[in-house]
Amino acid sequence: MPGNSFGQCFRITTFGESHGIALGVIIDGCPPNLPLTAQDIQGELDRRAPGKGLTTPRKEPDKVEVLSGTFEGKTTGTPITLIIYNKDVDSSKYEPIKDLFRPGHGDFTYFKKYGIRDYRGGGRASGRETVARVAAGAVAKKVLSAEGIDVMAYTIALGGIWAKERDLDFVNKNPLFCCDRKVYRLMEERISEVKRMGDSIGGVVEVLARGCPPGLGEPVFDKLDADLAKAIMSIGAVKGVEIGSGFRAAELLGSENNDEITPDGFLTNNAGGILAGISNGDDIIIRAAIKPIPSIEKTQRTIDIYGRPANISTKGRHDVSAIPRIVPVCEAMVRLVLADHLLRLKAIRKI
Amino acid sequence: MPGNSFGQCFRITTFGESHGIALGVIIDGCPPNLPLTAQDIQGELDRRAPGKGLTTPRKEPDKVEVLSGTFEGKTTGTPITLIIYNKDVDSSKYEPIKDLFRPGHGDFTYFKKYGIRDYRGGGRASGRETVARVAAGAVAKKVLSAEGIDVMAYTIALGGIWAKERDLDFVNKNPLFCCDRKVYRLMEERISEVKRMGDSIGGVVEVLARGCPPGLGEPVFDKLDADLAKAIMSIGAVKGVEIGSGFRAAELLGSENNDEITPDGFLTNNAGGILAGISNGDDIIIRAAIKPIPSIEKTQRTIDIYGRPANISTKGRHDVSAIPRIVPVCEAMVRLVLADHLLRLKAIRKI
Amino acid sequence: MPGNSFGQCFRITTFGESHGIALGVIIDGCPPNLPLTAQDIQGELDRRAPGKGLTTPRKEPDKVEVLSGTFEGKTTGTPITLIIYNKDVDSSKYEPIKDLFRPGHGDFTYFKKYGIRDYRGGGRASGRETVARVAAGAVAKKVLSAEGIDVMAYTIALGGIWAKERDLDFVNKNPLFCCDRKVYRLMEERISEVKRMGDSIGGVVEVLARGCPPGLGEPVFDKLDADLAKAIMSIGAVKGVEIGSGFRAAELLGSENNDEITPDGFLTNNAGGILAGISNGDDIIIRAAIKPIPSIEKTQRTIDIYGRPANISTKGRHDVSAIPRIVPVCEAMVRLVLADHLLRLKAIRKI
Amino acid sequence: MPGNSFGQCFRITTFGESHGIALGVIIDGCPPNLPLTAQDIQGELDRRAPGKGLTTPRKEPDKVEVLSGTFEGKTTGTPITLIIYNKDVDSSKYEPIKDLFRPGHGDFTYFKKYGIRDYRGGGRASGRETVARVAAGAVAKKVLSAEGIDVMAYTIALGGIWAKERDLDFVNKNPLFCCDRKVYRLMEERISEVKRMGDSIGGVVEVLARGCPPGLGEPVFDKLDADLAKAIMSIGAVKGVEIGSGFRAAELLGSENNDEITPDGFLTNNAGGILAGISNGDDIIIRAAIKPIPSIEKTQRTIDIYGRPANISTKGRHDVSAIPRIVPVCEAMVRLVLADHLLRLKAIRKI
Repeated sequence: MPGNSFGQCFRITTFGESHGIALGVIIDGCPPNLPLTAQDIQGELDRRAPGKGLTTPRKEPDKVEVLSGTFEGKTTGTPITLIIYNKDVDSSKYEPIKDLFRPGHGDFTYFKKYGIRDYRGGGRASGRETVARVAAGAVAKKVLSAEGIDVMAYTIALGGIWAKERDLDFVNKNPLFCCDRKVYRLMEERISEVKRMGDSIGGVVEVLARGCPPGLGEPVFDKLDADLAKAIMSIGAVKGVEIGSGFRAAELLGSENNDEITPDGFLTNNAGGILAGISNGDDIIIRAAIKPIPSIEKTQRTIDIYGRPANISTKGRHDVSAIPRIVPVCEAMVRLVLADHLLRLKAIRKI
Repeated sequence: MPGNSFGQCFRITTFGESHGIALGVIIDGCPPNLPLTAQDIQGELDRRAPGKGLTTPRKEPDKVEVLSGTFEGKTTGTPITLIIYNKDVDSSKYEPIKDLFRPGHGDFTYFKKYGIRDYRGGGRASGRETVARVAAGAVAKKVLSAEGIDVMAYTIALGGIWAKERDLDFVNKNPLFCCDRKVYRLMEERISEVKRMGDSIGGVVEVLARGCPPGLGEPVFDKLDADLAKAIMSIGAVKGVEIGSGFRAAELLGSENNDEITPDGFLTNNAGGILAGISNGDDIIIRAAIKPIPSIEKTQRTIDIYGRPANISTKGRHDVSAIPRIVPVCEAMVRLVLADHLLRLKAIRKI
Repeated sequence: MPGNSFGQCFRITTFGESHGIALGVIIDGCPPNLPLTAQDIQGELDRRAPGKGLTTPRKEPDKVEVLSGTFEGKTTGTPITLIIYNKDVDSSKYEPIKDLFRPGHGDFTYFKKYGIRDYRGGGRASGRETVARVAAGAVAKKVLSAEGIDVMAYTIALGGIWAKERDLDFVNKNPLFCCDRKVYRLMEERISEVKRMGDSIGGVVEVLARGCPPGLGEPVFDKLDADLAKAIMSIGAVKGVEIGSGFRAAELLGSENNDEITPDGFLTNNAGGILAGISNGDDIIIRAAIKPIPSIEKTQRTIDIYGRPANISTKGRHDVSAIPRIVPVCEAMVRLVLADHLLRLKAIRKI
Repeated sequence: MPGNSFGQCFRITTFGESHGIALGVIIDGCPPNLPLTAQDIQGELDRRAPGKGLTTPRKEPDKVEVLSGTFEGKTTGTPITLIIYNKDVDSSKYEPIKDLFRPGHGDFTYFKKYGIRDYRGGGRASGRETVARVAAGAVAKKVLSAEGIDVMAYTIALGGIWAKERDLDFVNKNPLFCCDRKVYRLMEERISEVKRMGDSIGGVVEVLARGCPPGLGEPVFDKLDADLAKAIMSIGAVKGVEIGSGFRAAELLGSENNDEITPDGFLTNNAGGILAGISNGDDIIIRAAIKPIPSIEKTQRTIDIYGRPANISTKGRHDVSAIPRIVPVCEAMVRLVLADHLLRLKAIRKI
């Protein structure tokens, strides 16, 4: 079975290459009668848009069109198709490196797997692929909002600088989606510094889902945390995922890590809102480790498609970090998982 | 869609509760003509067996039977069914706590999701469920061996004590599957200490897959690392997963994290053997954060199914750590993912 | 993806060979809190049981056990596993023909596909495989009954003799599940006659589902009639399926075939209860063409696995017609489809 | 799980409404390095195009664009997206009947299922939806051609007039895809006659697949004939499907229906090329019963969405029969099934 679909009951299938004609997504399984317009989706895409300043020099006006699945402003239960035509597709700068495998990129593995690859801008392996995820996530958001579920992501670390508090009001007021006012300046400075070095940095994104009813998640393989881990790890730059206390749980005692229960609820939330793979009604908390962007100006060793050694240096407009763009993508992926499991729960019981 | 199946081309469906009649698995999609006997599977189950000493006092002789799918010692291409009847099922000790939600367990969430639960030994949410995964993993191992792929897991941290080297020869010579001779004694001591405290500890397991051809993994959602993350996170006690440099990648520069390529191969392996979701031919490296076992002797606060406050203390035979049992489970889950993606790759091209 | 599973939300996976150790099924996705006992399932199996007289001489006491998924007489939402151990498995009579391909059987194709086959009693290709379908259908029946949906199958033709009326009260009072008292005697005589000839006959089974709410079926590929067609055609002996007016529709005018609508409902039911792939609330009517059983005493030409010509004649206890056994199987398959689509409908809207 | 996808390894997802912006399909799982251009697909669409004369007065230039999945004229292994923008979409004539349920149409059931429907031209329930199937089928054709598999469909009955021979050379030389030169004139006359009556007719389409290797089809639910039955029955106007001897098998003796085997092959082909759900290497033969088009000029009784009685008569340009358009659709669906099963077979063994 091929891998460009995600979800079971709320199911998306995406397509498109970085420098191809268009990218897009079909959303199948969306309940009918939800209000939905292109503007709803455009709003989410704009949050992902580069060119906001700090980390990326590009300007790419992503405009979404709704091709099917709505009628008079409402979903009809039929497949919703969203398309974003590529406009900014000068591929000439990829010509010189079309036979080279860029370190840290999918060039090598796509070539080995398929024996052919669209080298222009990374083709299907480009981060640009995530535009379809964000568009689909905007539809999932509609499904979740109708049930009072809210999802929000923010940067808690960038280039080794960690947020010390979770100021959710600040998140959408800064281009890095940082959740700590004080730390934000340090992150900005770190970006400038790394840019000057011709290098790149990664970071850590946290996603918070509030208002989930208990019961989301299917034992034993489609546990909610398992599906969230897959969703997040499927984003190109992610190298690690953790839920609740995460890797720290490996160092805690049972008595420290267990969340005691009282008639007023759980006393702590080391579980990250999920017990035995099923949501417990508490906040769901996931963190993703984002690697530094592989395209850097610094010269690196590589080989070409014939196996010959070469040097490579990525010049021109390139992001210093995937962080700001990836925050809305993480949000979208969590929304897609939650919408899917919400419908899956409804299949077996009223909620 | 329900959640007790895993894999697409090599697909397993498991069943069974901790104190029910039996646990087992149907493996559908296994190629024909592979030699397979009950002994092959029994060997893997024995590795998972408790009662080996350190961490668990139980004795549970798990005996597997092959009910279908083989003929004259070979797989036939039809569903392979493996069953393990429960023998050690005295449920009386669960009677007193049948109305209590044990902190850190699935009691609360199963009850909220289904409105009914088999409280005996955790029912389907028990760690015992993993016996079916290990049995299935033994079949996946046959598929992988035929292609020269080898998978091995080991403990790299337990209760805060970390291995400093990877001595693979030592792994199967100690009951903790620890990969560091020197550190092993410290882990043993830590276990004794925690046992005396009436508490429990977690740890970190690393899985190493060698011999994978380039090309495993399906863009963009069924990336190899995404499916591995799901596989590992679907194991009950796991709270975090990382690939290659993992969470450390979030603090590295691009120039540090990228694996440069030479005609002789990759110079480093921060990618953990996976680029853009596709295996690159290098070793695949995954780590899992294991939480401490929630059942502890120390008294904790909880509520009962009527919402009334209560205290709970788990007495009797209980593991101090999930670590030694979970190591073969991690191995099995990685094998299941790799066998599945191996067949998926064959569907589109000869290998 | 392998083919031993059926259904999306109410999903079954079956296993087992005719002369292997056991046959069975895992049912995943059954809603919790439905009363379910082994007796409920045994009742359906007994209807399928051979040895009732007319068409088959065998005696095969199929006893089902429930291995998982229920607790205190109710479903728990976890996988329900049903197993039937084979008792009547003398395979010696298959020894002489183990290298021969029986005409009309799967011997040839299983061998060509897998390069190996369990020749004993047809292995996985045996009609005996349907015991697992009937067992699973008994669980689906519970799901449907809770919603007022009733499914019933009966024989409308056998060996060229057609029922003239639909006397549903008579169906369960005769061993052929015939729906016409007058015609029943003729069918009995036809069976005796064909038995004397050392030959076999087929027939036509009709399935009637009453009480389905409008809305079952998913456009455009998982139409209710499409899934029913697959379900029925997946039964070994079936060569044709039709819905409502079926093949007769090909000869009608639009004005004849359309079902006019009045405030009191549809005036006719040529649609067979399904319009554009979605149930319309009317009776659902499906018919299946059953081929004559391929195992006959009459000598036939064939080849062996080395391609050499041979003659074959099946002696001993063999059914004259699949008809009476296949009637409960058709019922079961229709129930499985309806239960699945019922849950799929619930995923997107309250019913 | 929603229903707009079809296939497992070669998987398509379609979208679009009759009078919406566009229709299209994503094909996921197509092997890489197959030559593929828009012209390849356009050729198949043109065969389906109405306006060729006899049965339909419309002119609808369907032009396909390839949005993704190819590079320099070859497939890349990434999702192939095909889009057809709607051009001929004057919906004004649907205004007067927007609250009426047309007999024989999906108006009633879509409204009951979703509570909302795009009434313009039938929305998603329109026969126009099949344009995406034909486009996808053109890609499947590429996969099959590479293995020497050829699929062809033709009209064997129309309005009660049956072909007496299978003249495959004639099929593509007449606008009805009729396979009998002599009978063709009678069919033409029948169409004129029915047109004058303000009525419509159906017919029977046969599909012939040649060159299939033995081994296609997965026991026991995804039998090749089961998947073919679903594929064909999922086409809107189809009310019956049969394989090989089909419904006639119900009247034959076993000795008549069995295909004897000789070293030179099967002596007959009552099996229709499929035994026990697996292709046997012989020609695969499927027949589909097509109902008369429900939109007719003759006045019929119906109700509106408020349950009030009404009369309806469909005036203007409407097809007399679905037959000529549906022939390429049947071909496409069979190709999709075969391409899917070809890849599924490759997953478990070399072919």
